[in-house]
Amino acid sequence: MKVPAELLALLRKEDTFFIATHVNPDGDALGSALALSLALESMGKKTILYDRDGVPGPYLFLPGHERFVSSAATDGLPVVILLDCNDRKRSGLEGAAISFSAVIDHHETARDFGDIRWVEPDAAATGMMVYFLIRELGLEITKDMAANLYSAIVVDTGTFRYSNTTAEVLRVAAELVDAGADPQAIAVNLYETWPEARFRLLLMVLNTLEITDRFAVTYVTREMFAETGTSPEDTEHFSNFPRMIGTIAVSVFFREEEDGWKVSLRSRGEIDVAATAQCFKGGGHRNAAGFTIKADLETAKARVLSALSRSALAPSD
Amino acid sequence: MKVPAELLALLRKEDTFFIATHVNPDGDALGSALALSLALESMGKKTILYDRDGVPGPYLFLPGHERFVSSAATDGLPVVILLDCNDRKRSGLEGAAISFSAVIDHHETARDFGDIRWVEPDAAATGMMVYFLIRELGLEITKDMAANLYSAIVVDTGTFRYSNTTAEVLRVAAELVDAGADPQAIAVNLYETWPEARFRLLLMVLNTLEITDRFAVTYVTREMFAETGTSPEDTEHFSNFPRMIGTIAVSVFFREEEDGWKVSLRSRGEIDVAATAQCFKGGGHRNAAGFTIKADLETAKARVLSALSRSALAPSD
Repeated sequence: MKVPAELLALLRKEDTFFIATHVNPDGDALGSALALSLALESMGKKTILYDRDGVPGPYLFLPGHERFVSSAATDGLPVVILLDCNDRKRSGLEGAAISFSAVIDHHETARDFGDIRWVEPDAAATGMMVYFLIRELGLEITKDMAANLYSAIVVDTGTFRYSNTTAEVLRVAAELVDAGADPQAIAVNLYETWPEARFRLLLMVLNTLEITDRFAVTYVTREMFAETGTSPEDTEHFSNFPRMIGTIAVSVFFREEEDGWKVSLRSRGEIDVAATAQCFKGGGHRNAAGFTIKADLETAKARVLSALSRSALAPSD
Repeated sequence: MKVPAELLALLRKEDTFFIATHVNPDGDALGSALALSLALESMGKKTILYDRDGVPGPYLFLPGHERFVSSAATDGLPVVILLDCNDRKRSGLEGAAISFSAVIDHHETARDFGDIRWVEPDAAATGMMVYFLIRELGLEITKDMAANLYSAIVVDTGTFRYSNTTAEVLRVAAELVDAGADPQAIAVNLYETWPEARFRLLLMVLNTLEITDRFAVTYVTREMFAETGTSPEDTEHFSNFPRMIGTIAVSVFFREEEDGWKVSLRSRGEIDVAATAQCFKGGGHRNAAGFTIKADLETAKARVLSALSRSALAPSD
């Protein structure tokens, strides 16, 4: 992975950076932004860390998380470094006057934002890119940087379970453990800190499980949120659970909204759900896609399963 | 990790080996035994792979698994290599006449079996030891060896989530990926191949969840097994699920037996459940212990929770 020379020059030259990441930030967005901020400050630079939506509860263990701000001046920003996304809308900076910007991202959907663009679709995480950037700057990786980068990589590789887990990813993880990252502590923080209400909601959702052919269907209603005191954010990753069943090709999760259902599709391996999502004017990737549908639940289920039968299973069956 | 010279000499000198592992084998037992067998055969040696209980369904993806036999001659065995355990009873070879034996294990409970004993309590997995052994023998690690060793390490580190996940573990994992191990395929085989019946049983069990203070209690009855067509083996790892809840210090899982309940205790971090298990004449480690209790469920629950309140939470609360 080659860090662009102009990016290194920019980071060395400027004194103040406005580091932003995407709305609804995940562990890779937050961890990579924090590590870059800590690295630049170790060089004596000043950084402002911005995320419009703040830091979600599950990531409050990341060292330095309290430094994120969720509002930004709309004019006169210093040099903007945008991490883990590459367009203005996703950064929540639509209205801001930006004089100079650099993008560091591993997402394929490259847009035209950024005076300097470093986009590596093959990188498992933006955290991997920031690791190489920090090394290239010749900086020591501190314990706090290591914990942030390790968390970023762990979140985007499913703790080294997804297909993006390469030998290089594992080697970088080893370096970060040497630098002070604690794999167990990070795993406990990521996977074993659910509020009881969220667990109760998961059970309610899994109790709705219906299996049709190779499709698992679950749903959550607004009544369930009310009953457990939870909110839509609490359903993150719920659609992964039915995939534990070996015969399931696609997990379909319906979340009730005011005037319909938000549908998440999660598939395994070669099974492509992006095309099905496009039929419903949604989008996504091969193994993770989504859309909304305005219909009662039974009608919505029937339409989605019918579309999946036509498209998702066509190549492999 | 230093491989004993006499073990290397033995493996180089002898022509035929009887490789055995423990009863109720897990991924580390099977994967390390298979890798050692493949390595020795690549040297032109002959090996017999033995496990009394055969290969459980979840491990039928391990390359070479079909070579395990579950019966052994009781006399005239060639040199025995015992992996991932270190006593005769646990190997299921109580009655066999053994002329010479070597032990390769990472379990602390060292016994007096084995003419050559290589026990490394600090090794995350026996698979780690076999990796260094194969390297020390100067052999190339084939794709099949790599898949077996990677699986062994993944099972014993919880896919790099437990406290035994060191930088060295991650580096060895990287070497094994270079040699052909596929992290995603192995993770799917290990975590996403449940029969639907097992998932239905898990839901039934989690629906019994009761939380008292920092203790999560779940149970499975013989009626639930009958209703879902499952068996006690299907409940492996069930007691881990309630630990997703951040406030839970100990997950207590009751499994109905003919004349009482088998109880599993799983705790986090510093919380010691071994002492509680000993009160009930059971055993185990700090974070994982078990015992049986002859009483009706409500009485059993009350007694166990009372004992846990006295001992497990005493140091930290």
